[in-house]
Amino acid sequence: MTSTKWVYAFEEGCAEMKELLGGKGAGIAEMTRIGLPVPPGFTITTQACLHTLENEHEFPTDLWLQVTWAMESLGDRMERAFGSDRNPLLVSVRSGSKFSMPGMMDTVLNLGLNDQAVLRLAEKTGDSRFAWDAYRRLVQMFAKVVLRVDPGLLEAVIAAERSGEGVDTDPELSAEGWQRVTRSFKQIVREQSGREFPQDPWEQLELAVHAVFQSWNGKRAVDYRNACGISHDLGTAVNIQAMVFGNTGWDSGSGVAFTRNPASGEKMLYGEYLGNAQGEDVVSGARTPIPVSELGEEMPEILASLIRIATTLETHYRDMQDMEFTIENGKLWMLQTRTGKRTAAAAVKIAVDMVDEGLIEKAEAVSRILPEQIDQLLHPRFDPRALQELEKSGRLLAKGLNASPGAAVGAVVFDADLAHRMGKEDGKAVILVRPETTPDDVHGMLAAQGILTQHGGATSHAAVVARQLGKPCVAGCEALKIDLERRLFTVNGTTVNEGSVISLDGTEGRVFQAALPTIEPDFEEEKDLQKILRWADGIRKLEVWANADDGPQATRARHYGAEGIGLCRTEHMFLGERTAVFQSAILAAADNNPAEFQRILDEQLLTLQRSDFHDIFRAMDRLPVVIRLLDPPLHEFLPSLEALVEATATLAAKGDTGDEYQEKKRLLSIVQDMHEFNPMLGLRGCRLGIMLPPLNKMQVRAIFEAACDAALEGIDVHPEIMIPLTSHVNELKVIQPLLEEVAQNVMEEKGITISYKFGTMIEIPRAALTAGEIAEMAQFFSFGTNDLTQMTYGISRDDAERKFLLAYVEQCILPKNPFQAIDQIGVGRLMEIAVEEGRAVRPSLEVGICGEHGGEPDSIEFCHRTKLNYVSCSPYRVPVARLAAAHAVVKEQKEKEQLVPA
Amino acid sequence: MTSTKWVYAFEEGCAEMKELLGGKGAGIAEMTRIGLPVPPGFTITTQACLHTLENEHEFPTDLWLQVTWAMESLGDRMERAFGSDRNPLLVSVRSGSKFSMPGMMDTVLNLGLNDQAVLRLAEKTGDSRFAWDAYRRLVQMFAKVVLRVDPGLLEAVIAAERSGEGVDTDPELSAEGWQRVTRSFKQIVREQSGREFPQDPWEQLELAVHAVFQSWNGKRAVDYRNACGISHDLGTAVNIQAMVFGNTGWDSGSGVAFTRNPASGEKMLYGEYLGNAQGEDVVSGARTPIPVSELGEEMPEILASLIRIATTLETHYRDMQDMEFTIENGKLWMLQTRTGKRTAAAAVKIAVDMVDEGLIEKAEAVSRILPEQIDQLLHPRFDPRALQELEKSGRLLAKGLNASPGAAVGAVVFDADLAHRMGKEDGKAVILVRPETTPDDVHGMLAAQGILTQHGGATSHAAVVARQLGKPCVAGCEALKIDLERRLFTVNGTTVNEGSVISLDGTEGRVFQAALPTIEPDFEEEKDLQKILRWADGIRKLEVWANADDGPQATRARHYGAEGIGLCRTEHMFLGERTAVFQSAILAAADNNPAEFQRILDEQLLTLQRSDFHDIFRAMDRLPVVIRLLDPPLHEFLPSLEALVEATATLAAKGDTGDEYQEKKRLLSIVQDMHEFNPMLGLRGCRLGIMLPPLNKMQVRAIFEAACDAALEGIDVHPEIMIPLTSHVNELKVIQPLLEEVAQNVMEEKGITISYKFGTMIEIPRAALTAGEIAEMAQFFSFGTNDLTQMTYGISRDDAERKFLLAYVEQCILPKNPFQAIDQIGVGRLMEIAVEEGRAVRPSLEVGICGEHGGEPDSIEFCHRTKLNYVSCSPYRVPVARLAAAHAVVKEQKEKEQLVPA
Repeated sequence: MTSTKWVYAFEEGCAEMKELLGGKGAGIAEMTRIGLPVPPGFTITTQACLHTLENEHEFPTDLWLQVTWAMESLGDRMERAFGSDRNPLLVSVRSGSKFSMPGMMDTVLNLGLNDQAVLRLAEKTGDSRFAWDAYRRLVQMFAKVVLRVDPGLLEAVIAAERSGEGVDTDPELSAEGWQRVTRSFKQIVREQSGREFPQDPWEQLELAVHAVFQSWNGKRAVDYRNACGISHDLGTAVNIQAMVFGNTGWDSGSGVAFTRNPASGEKMLYGEYLGNAQGEDVVSGARTPIPVSELGEEMPEILASLIRIATTLETHYRDMQDMEFTIENGKLWMLQTRTGKRTAAAAVKIAVDMVDEGLIEKAEAVSRILPEQIDQLLHPRFDPRALQELEKSGRLLAKGLNASPGAAVGAVVFDADLAHRMGKEDGKAVILVRPETTPDDVHGMLAAQGILTQHGGATSHAAVVARQLGKPCVAGCEALKIDLERRLFTVNGTTVNEGSVISLDGTEGRVFQAALPTIEPDFEEEKDLQKILRWADGIRKLEVWANADDGPQATRARHYGAEGIGLCRTEHMFLGERTAVFQSAILAAADNNPAEFQRILDEQLLTLQRSDFHDIFRAMDRLPVVIRLLDPPLHEFLPSLEALVEATATLAAKGDTGDEYQEKKRLLSIVQDMHEFNPMLGLRGCRLGIMLPPLNKMQVRAIFEAACDAALEGIDVHPEIMIPLTSHVNELKVIQPLLEEVAQNVMEEKGITISYKFGTMIEIPRAALTAGEIAEMAQFFSFGTNDLTQMTYGISRDDAERKFLLAYVEQCILPKNPFQAIDQIGVGRLMEIAVEEGRAVRPSLEVGICGEHGGEPDSIEFCHRTKLNYVSCSPYRVPVARLAAAHAVVKEQKEKEQLVPA
Repeated sequence: MTSTKWVYAFEEGCAEMKELLGGKGAGIAEMTRIGLPVPPGFTITTQACLHTLENEHEFPTDLWLQVTWAMESLGDRMERAFGSDRNPLLVSVRSGSKFSMPGMMDTVLNLGLNDQAVLRLAEKTGDSRFAWDAYRRLVQMFAKVVLRVDPGLLEAVIAAERSGEGVDTDPELSAEGWQRVTRSFKQIVREQSGREFPQDPWEQLELAVHAVFQSWNGKRAVDYRNACGISHDLGTAVNIQAMVFGNTGWDSGSGVAFTRNPASGEKMLYGEYLGNAQGEDVVSGARTPIPVSELGEEMPEILASLIRIATTLETHYRDMQDMEFTIENGKLWMLQTRTGKRTAAAAVKIAVDMVDEGLIEKAEAVSRILPEQIDQLLHPRFDPRALQELEKSGRLLAKGLNASPGAAVGAVVFDADLAHRMGKEDGKAVILVRPETTPDDVHGMLAAQGILTQHGGATSHAAVVARQLGKPCVAGCEALKIDLERRLFTVNGTTVNEGSVISLDGTEGRVFQAALPTIEPDFEEEKDLQKILRWADGIRKLEVWANADDGPQATRARHYGAEGIGLCRTEHMFLGERTAVFQSAILAAADNNPAEFQRILDEQLLTLQRSDFHDIFRAMDRLPVVIRLLDPPLHEFLPSLEALVEATATLAAKGDTGDEYQEKKRLLSIVQDMHEFNPMLGLRGCRLGIMLPPLNKMQVRAIFEAACDAALEGIDVHPEIMIPLTSHVNELKVIQPLLEEVAQNVMEEKGITISYKFGTMIEIPRAALTAGEIAEMAQFFSFGTNDLTQMTYGISRDDAERKFLLAYVEQCILPKNPFQAIDQIGVGRLMEIAVEEGRAVRPSLEVGICGEHGGEPDSIEFCHRTKLNYVSCSPYRVPVARLAAAHAVVKEQKEKEQLVPA
């Protein structure tokens, strides 16, 4: 009978075993394997965790036996014994799942100590202060993590002791102080949990392992996984490792270091070190550490080792690493390594540099940049001139660490709940300001524009999470004095109340008391990004087009790399100062005055539209331009029913029934007549074109006059006329010949022939279901996935987000907001049907997408798999889409490679 | 080389050759074949027509040669010669396509006459009046049909001649009179058509055949085919037949006769005869004929022959026949036979009688009743007591022929265009009143509730078409004096103006000057119908359920044969006097007062709903009852936004801002908050249930309390709870367990267990596309094809019918109104997907339809083919659906038989 192997010594694992050993366990095993100085230990597998959770918290058979053997073997190596009072083996217990979830899982240090062993430790090290400090840490962490005692109660004890001894920081506390603290801790444990702190080290271990397992299903962890889309079926491993101590004096300490600068990407050892401290002290941000580079002044050999190890690890993993280390009495120990999180700018620079260094291939570089990171790089920054002036004018409040780059403006808010409420629910811009952040604050950080902390360094919780979320963060801004009671902070004599607007410059670490203007990033200047995108262009198969309604937008789209215009919304050309003209046309039509209607079209709107189109054709020389004919219902261009009812009722009640009243009354009657209960499913799109043909004919004339004029000027034009809202092929059979005739007439008048297409939006479910018929008329399809989603899902977007859709997403009733990422099994199935059946009838059919999904990476991958010709998105999203389209190819190739035996 | 056979002598054809020879040609051929007295002749095929129309009106090669041979052979048989002046062969030329289209196609009689032949005919018959009458008929018909001369000009000549001679009717006109008339006709032909009336009989024949061919594409014919769903690709045949004359004196005449009474179905020879007249005179209704039974007084042998022939034909065709005959100088000639049109009541009686007589099988009887005919039988009639009283009170205006049964009430309208405008476009009830009707009036007849004519008998155009359309008709009401100029009619001293309301009793042939109350038909008393429906029940596979919202409706549904309730709309239970209670609940919810909301639910609405459900369960003992949880958005129960804006604006303008204003203002703010741009796609159905669970919980409690109480009383209850508007299976995963828990609790409280199901509407496209997932939760599906059509087609029904949908159907952009008959390729495809994928996951899945399509025959056939378990429709449509479901089986079996070789 073979029993399951639940426990792996670090020597038995490797980097590829993340699924079984967790990320941390696999990292430690790999470091062990390549000969780095790692304290010995072993990992309990994720399988053991899952097994335990599924079996009412009962450990699987054999697990404890295997743990016991592993502990004995560990004791032998360390020449100590777990549970021994005389020569106690102390271990750390740390969780570690497949994906890194900073701060989400729990840790217990110094396990193995008890009332007897602490005395022996003090005796053996000759450092009673250290021994009692170690013991109180065990009791403190154990109480919090395993026994769920309120940590505030424990912190209060230490604060009282500090003030009793008259010192500022923990390292200054005396041995007796820590002994008193420990005694109080045990008292609190007894009162709060109803049990004694366990003196038996084996009992400590068993309870700690259980606690780690259970924390996998803790609310924080579940929320985090939901937010990040991580599966709940992975479980966490438990790493048990011989303790090394960074707090045995000033020749000891702990640190974290990145192999490259995670903010800029610069190749340098970047990190922080805190003397006489354990690792937890660095991450918590309670004391502000020194840059790791300054370690060279005190311990040059250690720094040199660290740099050597950094190079070894980077070469080994072919990626930037985030390392944790401890120095115990002058000896360097590596505790962890993992792929380091980085800003978007750093990600791009590192990827490009590593290609240059020959570490990785171009496709690998492309696939390492997340599409969202591109988006961050293209986000606005503060105007540098405004920044300078503000600094001069003294409205620079403070400087802190530039923990996460970017610009944020918002109202100061002092707690995460309020930030969530104001930011997410009310849609206000807020800046979360905290002494330091904890995992309990993540929902507030998500809702905030930026984060400002008083304490903590570049690797503090606030900094790490902010970088991951792409939010600007200024950390460790010690000049701030935050008063949570009075809900304000003071800095250099200035008081800032909750609700006041400040600006955060995460790139430079500055805080301003003002709402600063922002400017566009200069895409041209992002040389590394340009390289990545060119590499992506070489990989992707989807073309990337853009939605643009005028010349400037088209120019910007092209600047960002758009290879065509996938959607030009002509109704936007009837807005602003042109609304009055268009209204007069609508009223003429409503009055059954076709001559006047036609006159306004011919004499006014035709000229305006022609000029708009001409600008776009000029911007898009050689590239296709898809122009959608008028789509919205006409009443959208008239005053609202509600406003007119109110105005006429008011006038009537005042007895004022003169000209104004009569005019409003007439307008009201027209608007009432045009009113629809569900305008989205009403008289719009090609239905309007069919019921009122002069409108579409005028538009097609304007398009072809502009296109022919541009062609005569030497511009290579490719107009594609898109007929919206088709539900039945007969609609195209009625309207398309009318419009083709206009096109032919204009080309004859202008004496030039240009290439053009007629096609349709696929945005009604029936159009997708009958795509074969529709492709008999349409030369191209463009998926209008906004409307297609609304109708397929039966959800009116504008109404629903406010009324139930966001609640649905929050309660996980819908896995995602279907207006952000295509609902692949519902809406996507209709798209697949349309592509397949449309191309079966017309193999040359050009198919694209012009809904907002065209710029969303998962949706782009779906479009690639569904074999669309292009995606079209907003100009700003074009670079994102170029990258996402390349990712889709890389992912597909990887999947294929996994299917094909080597 | 074999050439196509374009011409078939009557001896060469048979009844099965309708497609090639047309209905009339096949009928004549069959009569010839079984030895009845038929004037000899031949048929030019429908293929010849199609060929000619497709080839720019050029006859196919050989056609004319074959016609020439056939004419020569006909001349030989008749011992006359076509084109001979001395012994001229006269023929009729009649159209006849596969399907009968009364009055739609054209006829020319007496072809072969000319200026010379007329003299010879007069000489030979010794009847110069007859000869000139025959010649003027030829010129008159030829002018109208072939040369398209305005027939009014010709009629005016005859009217002038009548008044010149001082006679009332045409048969009284003298030979000289007809000679003068003929001369004038030729003059008019010359002036109007720019050519002489052709003297060459062969030229007459060629032009007449061309004219018949072309009339296939005439506007009237095309409109009729569109209206009746007849293919445009059939073409018409041309029947050329030796003339026999009913107008050679008073021992001659023409008649039409049915083998059974087409109004009641009674087995008797039923028809009309007009002495000294050609067939056209009978049909036109210009003179009122005598019943055919009275023929026995003058010509008993002829009547006996006719009865013998009727029996022969009925036995031969196994169906009631509609025969045309002519008596020429005492000899009976059969001109045509075809399946006779009949009223719904007659159809049912004839079908049942023929089964009893052993003529047909039950399945054949069932398949002969059209579903629409059932509907007619269940239409309301006038209350007989009200009728009696009216007759006593002298408001019976007149009696005419009971040409088509049923009751109609509406405003008098004197022309078809106005009837169409008022009836179809304005939706008003109108009665079309005409001296007589022609095919040009059909659009007005379609739009009218009923038809009243001054002239014409039971086989006049008005009567035949009205019976076909199922519209009540009183014909030949000679007491009426219609004044089209002044737009009124007078009758027995009473003047009725256009626009006045009258009532028509088509069953008894009475006209009343009043709007009469109507009563329901007594379904129980329709014994023959009951037989047909029981036979249908034995054939069909679909169950027929009904939509019913309360006890009385459920009782009625069961009375009509419903086997379950497929849709009980619970929102109807919140209307009427209960609206105020439900409003107070909504306001409590809007005010964030869950306690008050719950209190109103528990104390008021629960009791009301429980009592409603109890009534329904009692009515549906042993049968399933599908109850849909609240579906519409809550704002539908509140005053409209528009009304509140107007009310508050008016009060504010008057400075009246007291309590009423405050109350309205509060209501307005709630209504504004609830307002949705597209409420159909908004917060309704299960979305409401999820956001506001107490509502659905109260409903489920009411259902189960009622069901358990009923069960305790000994009623066998089968509630099925239907959750509306599901778009994602997770919605069911959230709400269904909550509701199942309520169900379990109630059953425990009541101490009884009942059988029940939970299921969902499939009315959102995505639900159909993900039916496999949804079937994991739902035990039944019910297609809500109203909403499913709205979303799949992107059409808001209420808005669209007014704005573009009816125009689309009229312009044939949509083949049918998709809200009347299921759009099988779009919406239907989603249904097929849902059935297949739902049953794949849950083989026991019960699937039905509860949209309005559930009572529409084509849609029912589709549901049968798609293997639904049941259709659910309004109680009145249940009998229709029972029959249609049987038809679907019969049709399917016939299709299978055609596929399997015998």
